[in-house]
Amino acid sequence: MPHYDRILITGAAGRLGSQLRTGLAPLARTIRVADREPLGPLSPNEEQAIFDLADMEATIAATEGCDAIVHFGGAPTEREWQTILDAGIRGSYHIYEGARKHGVKRIVYASSVHAIGYHEVGAQISVDAPVRPDCLYGVGKTFVESLSRLYWDKFGIETACLRIFSSFPEPVDRRMLWSYLSFADCVRLVEASLTAPFVGHTISFGTSDNKVKAVDNSGAGHLGYHPQDSSEPFRAKVEADAPALDPKSPAGRYLGGKFCEMGHPDDEATA
Amino acid sequence: MPHYDRILITGAAGRLGSQLRTGLAPLARTIRVADREPLGPLSPNEEQAIFDLADMEATIAATEGCDAIVHFGGAPTEREWQTILDAGIRGSYHIYEGARKHGVKRIVYASSVHAIGYHEVGAQISVDAPVRPDCLYGVGKTFVESLSRLYWDKFGIETACLRIFSSFPEPVDRRMLWSYLSFADCVRLVEASLTAPFVGHTISFGTSDNKVKAVDNSGAGHLGYHPQDSSEPFRAKVEADAPALDPKSPAGRYLGGKFCEMGHPDDEATA
Amino acid sequence: MPHYDRILITGAAGRLGSQLRTGLAPLARTIRVADREPLGPLSPNEEQAIFDLADMEATIAATEGCDAIVHFGGAPTEREWQTILDAGIRGSYHIYEGARKHGVKRIVYASSVHAIGYHEVGAQISVDAPVRPDCLYGVGKTFVESLSRLYWDKFGIETACLRIFSSFPEPVDRRMLWSYLSFADCVRLVEASLTAPFVGHTISFGTSDNKVKAVDNSGAGHLGYHPQDSSEPFRAKVEADAPALDPKSPAGRYLGGKFCEMGHPDDEATA
Amino acid sequence: MPHYDRILITGAAGRLGSQLRTGLAPLARTIRVADREPLGPLSPNEEQAIFDLADMEATIAATEGCDAIVHFGGAPTEREWQTILDAGIRGSYHIYEGARKHGVKRIVYASSVHAIGYHEVGAQISVDAPVRPDCLYGVGKTFVESLSRLYWDKFGIETACLRIFSSFPEPVDRRMLWSYLSFADCVRLVEASLTAPFVGHTISFGTSDNKVKAVDNSGAGHLGYHPQDSSEPFRAKVEADAPALDPKSPAGRYLGGKFCEMGHPDDEATA
Amino acid sequence: MPHYDRILITGAAGRLGSQLRTGLAPLARTIRVADREPLGPLSPNEEQAIFDLADMEATIAATEGCDAIVHFGGAPTEREWQTILDAGIRGSYHIYEGARKHGVKRIVYASSVHAIGYHEVGAQISVDAPVRPDCLYGVGKTFVESLSRLYWDKFGIETACLRIFSSFPEPVDRRMLWSYLSFADCVRLVEASLTAPFVGHTISFGTSDNKVKAVDNSGAGHLGYHPQDSSEPFRAKVEADAPALDPKSPAGRYLGGKFCEMGHPDDEATA
Amino acid sequence: MPHYDRILITGAAGRLGSQLRTGLAPLARTIRVADREPLGPLSPNEEQAIFDLADMEATIAATEGCDAIVHFGGAPTEREWQTILDAGIRGSYHIYEGARKHGVKRIVYASSVHAIGYHEVGAQISVDAPVRPDCLYGVGKTFVESLSRLYWDKFGIETACLRIFSSFPEPVDRRMLWSYLSFADCVRLVEASLTAPFVGHTISFGTSDNKVKAVDNSGAGHLGYHPQDSSEPFRAKVEADAPALDPKSPAGRYLGGKFCEMGHPDDEATA
Repeated sequence: MPHYDRILITGAAGRLGSQLRTGLAPLARTIRVADREPLGPLSPNEEQAIFDLADMEATIAATEGCDAIVHFGGAPTEREWQTILDAGIRGSYHIYEGARKHGVKRIVYASSVHAIGYHEVGAQISVDAPVRPDCLYGVGKTFVESLSRLYWDKFGIETACLRIFSSFPEPVDRRMLWSYLSFADCVRLVEASLTAPFVGHTISFGTSDNKVKAVDNSGAGHLGYHPQDSSEPFRAKVEADAPALDPKSPAGRYLGGKFCEMGHPDDEATA
Repeated sequence: MPHYDRILITGAAGRLGSQLRTGLAPLARTIRVADREPLGPLSPNEEQAIFDLADMEATIAATEGCDAIVHFGGAPTEREWQTILDAGIRGSYHIYEGARKHGVKRIVYASSVHAIGYHEVGAQISVDAPVRPDCLYGVGKTFVESLSRLYWDKFGIETACLRIFSSFPEPVDRRMLWSYLSFADCVRLVEASLTAPFVGHTISFGTSDNKVKAVDNSGAGHLGYHPQDSSEPFRAKVEADAPALDPKSPAGRYLGGKFCEMGHPDDEATA
Repeated sequence: MPHYDRILITGAAGRLGSQLRTGLAPLARTIRVADREPLGPLSPNEEQAIFDLADMEATIAATEGCDAIVHFGGAPTEREWQTILDAGIRGSYHIYEGARKHGVKRIVYASSVHAIGYHEVGAQISVDAPVRPDCLYGVGKTFVESLSRLYWDKFGIETACLRIFSSFPEPVDRRMLWSYLSFADCVRLVEASLTAPFVGHTISFGTSDNKVKAVDNSGAGHLGYHPQDSSEPFRAKVEADAPALDPKSPAGRYLGGKFCEMGHPDDEATA
Repeated sequence: MPHYDRILITGAAGRLGSQLRTGLAPLARTIRVADREPLGPLSPNEEQAIFDLADMEATIAATEGCDAIVHFGGAPTEREWQTILDAGIRGSYHIYEGARKHGVKRIVYASSVHAIGYHEVGAQISVDAPVRPDCLYGVGKTFVESLSRLYWDKFGIETACLRIFSSFPEPVDRRMLWSYLSFADCVRLVEASLTAPFVGHTISFGTSDNKVKAVDNSGAGHLGYHPQDSSEPFRAKVEADAPALDPKSPAGRYLGGKFCEMGHPDDEATA
Repeated sequence: MPHYDRILITGAAGRLGSQLRTGLAPLARTIRVADREPLGPLSPNEEQAIFDLADMEATIAATEGCDAIVHFGGAPTEREWQTILDAGIRGSYHIYEGARKHGVKRIVYASSVHAIGYHEVGAQISVDAPVRPDCLYGVGKTFVESLSRLYWDKFGIETACLRIFSSFPEPVDRRMLWSYLSFADCVRLVEASLTAPFVGHTISFGTSDNKVKAVDNSGAGHLGYHPQDSSEPFRAKVEADAPALDPKSPAGRYLGGKFCEMGHPDDEATA
Repeated sequence: MPHYDRILITGAAGRLGSQLRTGLAPLARTIRVADREPLGPLSPNEEQAIFDLADMEATIAATEGCDAIVHFGGAPTEREWQTILDAGIRGSYHIYEGARKHGVKRIVYASSVHAIGYHEVGAQISVDAPVRPDCLYGVGKTFVESLSRLYWDKFGIETACLRIFSSFPEPVDRRMLWSYLSFADCVRLVEASLTAPFVGHTISFGTSDNKVKAVDNSGAGHLGYHPQDSSEPFRAKVEADAPALDPKSPAGRYLGGKFCEMGHPDDEATA
C-alpha cells in the first residue's frame, strides 16, 4: 500500500528528476511527472503534465489531486535574474499556492548548497545557520525556504528543504570528495522525506556518506535519511585528475566552491 | 562635513520616509528623495526622483551618483503577491543592481518584524535566529535580507537590515508596549547604521527602549543604536483603551501579532 | 482601572509577602491575603484566607474568584523533607489545581536561586540553564518550575517563576553584593510579571541592579523588570563587617553560597 | 568478576524490570529484586525484597548492602496525583535517602520521554534542553532528575537518568518508528550506565537505533550506549496497521505523542 | 580599610601602569611599583622594585609579601619574537611562579584585543570565543590566558585577564570609536577586578562605554565593571581627521585593526 | 602519485613518530625523519635530519624543501618548565618560522588532551571549547594551537591540531576505555589530516572508536578521520587489572585524568 495517492514531480525531465521518477514509483499509486519539456515514454503508473512554472494558472492546475509534491523544477544552476525570478521564485510561489488551494500535505523541495555557499568548510555549520547564498540561484533557494516556512507555520503544509550539494554521476573534482551526493542517495533522501512521520518545516543537507564531511546534518535526524554511498571509491581517480584546491581561495574555503568566485550572471548574460 | 555626498531615500513619501527625509539631512550634502508619488516641496539640499521600483532601468538610474541608499520603498504592509513581487522583490533587486553598477557603498534596508513574526515573544530571539515570516510581506523582507547578504559577501556592498517593529506616532495596542519604535528612534537607528565604522551585513531589531523587550538585539551592537524613547508614557492610555492579549492566541504569543492570524492576501484580494 | 479583579497572595504574612501585600495593592480591586498564620489588620481592599497549603480542599477553595495568584507561600528556606513535601510540593500542586479549576489566568511564583545553586558564579548562566539545586528547598522549587511548565503547555495558565536571590532589608555578607534584591525591587519584579502583555512560562532571576552580576537575565526581558536599587550603598559596611569569601570554597564559588556547604536537613532534624 | 557486589532493582516485577532482572545478572554477585508485588521464582543469584516505595523505612532498609540501584519502580505511566506523589516522588526520595545512608555509589533511574514531551520532534533537542513535561507522570520524572542532581553535587552519588521513550515488545504506531526502545537495547542502556567509568549526573535519551531520530543523544556519549536494534523490521506492519499522524496535532508534533492530548488524570479519576 | 595589604604593579612606568599606580592607591596599604626602568619619585605608600621580567629569580622575589599582582609589564605592542618570549611568555611564567610560591591570591593581567584580533567586528563575540591572535604579541597574551587558567584550576590562584582594546589619552582613528578605553575606565576595570567577590579565572573585554560596541562582554558581569567614559565626545574630531575604514579590508573588518595587516615582526627587525 | 613531495616528521624516533614514519610513507616521495636522537636504519624513501628543536637555525633549515610537516617532536609528557619552553614553545615557533620562510603548505601538530584536561568527562565538550590545560605540557600545547591559528589567519599556512588522548600499545587503565587511540588510528588521523581537501586551522580530538566517548569531535568532520579500532577488546583485561576510578576525584572526573592531580613539575624537579 503506497504512502501517497498521487505525487507530483516537477523538473521530472531533469538530471535528478529523471532519477526520482523511477526511484519514487513505489511510494504512490500515480506519479504525475511534470516539466516544460517532453518527458519521453510514460510508465503505467505515470501521468504527465507539460507546463511552465512561470504560468500560475497551469502550475496550480497541475497540483490538483496530488497529496505530495516533489519540487525539483526550475533552473538547476546559476542563471540570469529573469530566469531565477520566473522559474525559481514565481514558479515556486505557484507551486505553494497550488498546494494550499488543493490540500497537498507535504512538499519536498530541492534547495541547494548555494543557499549557504559562503560559510566556511571548517565551520561545520548546522541546518539552522543563517543563509549565506553565493549566487542569485542560491538567493532564489533561500526565498523558497522562507516561503515554505510560512506555508507550514500558517497553513500547515509540510516541507522538507533538501540542500542538494553535488548530485552527479560521480565526483569530478576535489570538492566533491565531500559534496558528492550519489543519485541513489538522492532518491533515498527524497524517499525518507516523503515517509518520515513528522516533517513540519525541515532543512536538511544532501550529501552521500562521504569520508570528509563539511556540515553537520544532525538537526534533520527526524527525516530518517541514511546515505549508503560515498565518494571514496572515486578518490584515487579524482586525486589523479583534479588539482588540489587552494585553501585560501574562495573556491577552496567556502561550501559553495567555484560559485563563490563567479561574477554576476547578468553581466555575463549581456557580455 | 557630512558623511556622504548623496544619499538616496526610497519611499520618501511614506510614513517613515518622510521622517527620514528631514532627520537624515545633516548626513549628506544632497538627499535624493524618491517615490512613485509626488514628494511635495523640496528642501534646498534635496533633489527628487519619481519612479516605480518595478522599473529596473529607472531604478538603477536613480542610484547613480549616490554613495548610500536608505531603502524604505515598497509596500509598507501585507499586500497581494503581485505587489510584494513587484515592489518588494523585483524593486529591491533593482536597487541592489543599481548599487553594484554605480559603486554605492552602503545600504540601509527597512526589513520588518514580520520576517521573524512566528517566533514566540518569550523566546527572546537574537538577530541570527532563522527566519519565520508571518505573511507574504515578511517573505519579501527575508528575500532582501538574503539578497543583501550576497551583495556583501560577493560584491562588498554593506547593508544594515533593520527589522522595524511598530513605528507609528504612538502605541495603540498592548503589543506595541514592546514593539513600539518612535519616529525619532527610527531616525536614530538609520543614522547609526549610516555612520557606524563597520556594518558589513548586519541584521538589527528596531524598537524603542521600551520597558518590555521581546527580542535580544545585542548582536547588532556595532551599529551603535541607542534608543531614547519608550512606550511607557503611553502605557496608561493603552491599557485603558486596548484589551489585553490572549497569551494562547497567535496574536498574543508570536512576535508578528495579528499578522499571524491573517489569512492569505490573494484570497482577500479576490474576495 | 486595576489589571486584575482579585489577586491571591499566599505567604502574605511572610517577609516578602507582607511587602507585596501593600506593594501590589494598586493592581487589583481586591487582594486576598493568605497564610496559615494570622495576617493582622486588613486594609479596605483586602480580604483574608487562613489555611494550610497542605490542605488540598482549602487551598483550592481559596483560589476561587481570583484571576491571578502571587504564590509566595511555603517554607522560605531549607527545611526537613516533610515540610518541603507538604508546603512546597503538595501545597503548590494544590495551588495549580485551584488555578485550573477556577480559571486563574496567571501565577507569579517565588522560586529561588537555590534551584540553580550549584552553578558557578563565573558561569553567568542564563535562565534556561539546567537546574542544579543546592538543597531540598531548591529541589522543591524546581518541582514547581516543572509543574507550572506543564500547566502552561497543557492548560494555558501562565506562570512567571521568579528565582529570588537574597531579598532582605539590606545585604549582610559579601555574596549579597551580587545577590541582593531590595524589597522595593522585589515588588517591582512581581508587578512587572503581573502586567507584562505576555508571560507564558517564564523563568527570571531576581536581583537588584547590583554592580556585580552573577547571572544573565536577558532571557526574561519580556517581563519588563527594571530594578532600581543596588547593593552599592551598603558596600562599605559589608566589606568592613563581613569577611572575604574563599573563591575555592563552595560557598564562594557557587551561586547558592553557604547552602552548598550545608549537610542534609533530615540529619540535622534528628540530631 | 562482576562490577558490583549487590544491585537493587526496583520495579522488578514490571515490564522492564523483569527484563533487567535477567539481563543484568552478570553484573553483580547478587541481584536484589524488589517490588510491592510477588516476584515469582528467584534465580540462585537473586534475593527479593517486597515493600511499597511509599514506605520510607522499608525502602531505606532495602538499599542496605547494595552498591548500585536500578530504580525502575513506581507507576509506569500517567496516574492520578496521589499515585505520582507516593510512588514517583516520595518513593524516589526514599531511594535516594537509602543510597545516602548506606553508601550506594551509583543509581540508574528510569526517567521518561514524558519529562520533555512538549518539545517538538523537529527540534532535535539535546539532553540539556529545559524540561517540558506532558503529564503529572512526567513532572514526577523531572522531580527525580532534579533530586538526583543534588545528590551528585552535594553527596557524590552518581545517577544516570534514562529517559525511556517507548519500550515495548514491538512498535505499534507511527510514533514508535522513532520512539521505539527494544527490550534488549533497554538492557544494554542500563548495563552501559552501570559500567561506564564516569557517570556523575547524566541524562540520556533511551531509544533503539531507529532510522528516524527525534532527539540528539550525543551529550550522553560517556555512557557508552550503542543500541543494536531498530524499529525498521516492523515498519511495514506499522504502516499497514496504524494511521499516519497529523503533523499539526500535538500527538503528531511533540515528543510526548498522545500524552500531549490527554486531559488531567485527576479529572478522569473522579469521572 | 584597604582590600589588600600589598599590591605589586608590574610595568608601573608604562602608559597604563603609571595610571594604575595612582588610581589603585586606595586599595592597598602598600603599592609595590615595578619596572625595569626608573619609576620616578615614590608616594608615601609606594615601594619600588627594579628588575627585568626575564630574570626568574628577581621576578619571583618581587612577588614576596604581596597578596595581589596587577601584571601590566612586558612589551606593550608587537615586537620581534625574542622580546615576546622574554618579556611576555617567560616573564609571565615567572610572575605566576612567584604567586604560587608566595601565596598571592589574585592577579589582574593586561591581556589584549590582539588575542582575538582576527574575529570580525560584526560577530559580536563573547568572552569565551576561541582565540584568534593577530600578531606574536597577541599569541603571547593567549599564552598567559592559558597559563593563568592552569594556575586557577590547579593551584587556586585567581586571575582576571583583561583584554585591553585601545587605551590612550583619546581616540585618534575611526576604529577607536568602538575600541577606546579611557585611562579612568582602565583604572575602574582593574579596580573592579581586584574587589569583585569572586573572580576565579575570568576573561573580560576592556573598552569604555562607547556608542558602538564590537563585542559582548556580558560573560564577565561578575567583575562588576561599569565604564563611565565614551569615545563620543571625540567623535566629531575623529571623523574630521581620520579617514573612513574600508569594511572589506582586514583593518576595517577585524577586531585587531591594522595589526591584521602587519607583516611578521622578525622580518621587519632584520630588514 | 603521492600527495606530497617531501614531508618532514619531527619526533620521528618517538613512540608515535616511529609509527608515523612507516604509516605515512605512501603519502610522499620522500619522508624526512627528524629527531635529536639517532633514528636507526633509513628506508629508501627516507632521509634524516638530526637537530634540536631549540636550535632555531637548524630547525628552520630542516624545513627547507618540504611541503608538509608532521610535528610530533618535543617532550611527550609533563616536564619542568625549561624543557616545555625549549622543546614545546621555542621549538614549535622555529617550525612555524621554517614553514613560513620555506613555503610549507600544511602542518599536522600533535597537540594533547592535556590542553583541555580540566573539562569534565560528562561535559562532552566540542573542539571549540575554551582551553583548560592540566599541566605545563598542556599549556605548551595551547601555545602552539594559538600560534598556528595566527599562521593560518595571517600567513595562509594550514594546521591540523590533533589533541591526542592516550596513544599506547593498548589501554592499561579504566580511563583509557574512553581515551585510547590505537597506533593504527593515530596514523589514520594524521593521514586524514594530510589528505583532506581543506584544513585551514582545525582542532580535532584523537581517540579510537571506543564505546565510551568523552568528547564531541563532530566539529572536525572535514578532516575525514574515521577510527577503526576500539578499546573494547581490552576491556575485560583492563577491568580485571585496573581499579575503578573515583568519579569525585579529579583523576576520575576530568579529561586529563591523573595529570589533574599532579603537582608542579618544577617542584618535583628540584625535590
